[in-house]
Amino acid sequence: MELLKRKIIEKGTVKEGNILKVDNFLNHQLDIDLLNEVGKEFKRRFAEENITKILTAEVSGIAIAAITAQYFHVPVVFAKKTESKNLDEETFEGNVYSYTKEKQYKIRVSKKYIAKGENILIIDDFLANGQAILGLKEIVDAAEANLVGAGVVIEKGFQEGGKILRADHINIQSLAIIETMEDNKIVFRDYRD
Amino acid sequence: MELLKRKIIEKGTVKEGNILKVDNFLNHQLDIDLLNEVGKEFKRRFAEENITKILTAEVSGIAIAAITAQYFHVPVVFAKKTESKNLDEETFEGNVYSYTKEKQYKIRVSKKYIAKGENILIIDDFLANGQAILGLKEIVDAAEANLVGAGVVIEKGFQEGGKILRADHINIQSLAIIETMEDNKIVFRDYRD
Repeated sequence: MELLKRKIIEKGTVKEGNILKVDNFLNHQLDIDLLNEVGKEFKRRFAEENITKILTAEVSGIAIAAITAQYFHVPVVFAKKTESKNLDEETFEGNVYSYTKEKQYKIRVSKKYIAKGENILIIDDFLANGQAILGLKEIVDAAEANLVGAGVVIEKGFQEGGKILRADHINIQSLAIIETMEDNKIVFRDYRD
Repeated sequence: MELLKRKIIEKGTVKEGNILKVDNFLNHQLDIDLLNEVGKEFKRRFAEENITKILTAEVSGIAIAAITAQYFHVPVVFAKKTESKNLDEETFEGNVYSYTKEKQYKIRVSKKYIAKGENILIIDDFLANGQAILGLKEIVDAAEANLVGAGVVIEKGFQEGGKILRADHINIQSLAIIETMEDNKIVFRDYRD
């Protein structure tokens, strides 16, 4: 997606430890016009699928999922990271290993909000080691729903997540795949657009 | 806002400790069509104001703010609750006292994303004791920006927040104000619609 790649080049910055900072437009300040184009592109890529719900994880996936859901005319559910007294006791759980924090945590969705047989599209901001999407897939599997695919805004193509998830036959659609970002120079993989 | 009130009556549940659970449509599963109507109503109520940015706090405010921002054609910034290595070192800070957790925590926005003189609209899901909006106001004040007002989806009119904020001359626009919710019966305040 050219508009997104231009935005990453213009506004993104590379930090030590393979961190791509996109807080100018994607996960602190939100460029709503860009998110609308992102939503339209996800709709184009999953147009043939009869999606009934969009699933994401708090925090960074929420705005992208909400804007995208407008093009699919379906509700969003976001998995919660924290124990909350507002969360139902009956939940589907997924496990996510955080490499940066070196610990595993759980994400949860109330059993009320994913029904057996639903067609679920996962939406997230980043795909790096694939842990978040694997955790969300656990929730979809536990609900006996169908995982139609995952729409990712930015994939770090030099990390393992994309390979692992595609080997698992998940339809991963990343709108920008970064091949390398050494020496502060971002190179995209030439893939699909 | 009648549509919202109907939704609260139909889908909301009252739990012990003055908790109104609206996770069916507002803060776990998200009813995107409803959020669009909420966004349009905020636009109607703040139509005369030259708003340049919408400010909210993670987590529950994000989807509402993102959908609403489409009607104002402005970016969103959401204040972060956690220390994050993705957050700039230079931040504006606000303090929020959590009555449920009985402790104070900080919310932060990078100094890059609120400029002096900007016209800020705060958006949040709930107004109860007013702490979140007061914390966000601290951030707006620290940035020397103008707080135009705050759009709230559900105000618990029986708690003090609305009174405190209005006494502080903040233009609070709540789309549904709950007068009482004793014995699982929700009564709205008859105010503005």
